[in-house]
Amino acid sequence: MPNPNPIRPTDDEARTLACALIDQARFAALAVISPETQAPTVTRIGFGTDAQGTPVTLVSSLSAHTQALQANPACSLLVGEPGEKGDPLTHPRLTIDAEASFIARDAPDHAALRARWLAQHPKAKLYVDFADFAFVRLAPRAAFLNGGFGKAYRLAPDDLAGGA
Amino acid sequence: MPNPNPIRPTDDEARTLACALIDQARFAALAVISPETQAPTVTRIGFGTDAQGTPVTLVSSLSAHTQALQANPACSLLVGEPGEKGDPLTHPRLTIDAEASFIARDAPDHAALRARWLAQHPKAKLYVDFADFAFVRLAPRAAFLNGGFGKAYRLAPDDLAGGA
Repeated sequence: MPNPNPIRPTDDEARTLACALIDQARFAALAVISPETQAPTVTRIGFGTDAQGTPVTLVSSLSAHTQALQANPACSLLVGEPGEKGDPLTHPRLTIDAEASFIARDAPDHAALRARWLAQHPKAKLYVDFADFAFVRLAPRAAFLNGGFGKAYRLAPDDLAGGA
Repeated sequence: MPNPNPIRPTDDEARTLACALIDQARFAALAVISPETQAPTVTRIGFGTDAQGTPVTLVSSLSAHTQALQANPACSLLVGEPGEKGDPLTHPRLTIDAEASFIARDAPDHAALRARWLAQHPKAKLYVDFADFAFVRLAPRAAFLNGGFGKAYRLAPDDLAGGA
């Protein structure tokens, strides 16, 4: 009979794994609420962090996910990609439920975000300065780490603060 | 200046690519609405198709995403995984906005779904018959194909019917 409570107590091993998944991710799945249907919709975005380790993305205002975040900042991220081999459902992954805030181009931290993003995503130099692109900070509200079957943890924003 | 309307007219090449992404996927990102927060949340699920090519998953009732789908069947899937090399944002991917329906174990199509799932996911034989696991059909309402920068298409359910 399966364990009725599959969530384990959060420990340092879980915190370290969650921070490693964030640090290593260069893209993520982003779930938002569609302003047209109020249903969830999920797309791929570029993924990085700011100097504090908080998730950041760079998105175009032409994208439906950007328009959705402008209408409703509640969103969720999935990072931790399976390799080519093995059961993908045993590979660790992290869900981060987050709140989006757009970074103005004249904000004091824009230059540092831009430099860090380009270090993490060198190919973004082709479009980072396009007028329709903007950085968005994705502040975690809660997170869920799945380290494989039977290894699940609920994490608080403070549990993710070890990265950067 | 970027193109203000990045969506191209749907053609057979887009339909073929979308169906190939569905046929090849063995896992997906699943976005649902959390019953607790009404915010979107995204997790990884196993992904397959039924004999008609409609997306199917196998989930445990112990999982938060399963409980979310039981409360609200509106969901979204992302398939099409970047390889180890190259810019992940140029790799084709498909968003499928869908409606979930649970398949009862005594439903007439359960045995065929189970056999097809095990052919697509041999390791699932370890848990497919656990009492807490159920198949869920994820009927597409609309889809969005991103074939890389500037190659975006909106697809209707009929555009995805070429798979299986």
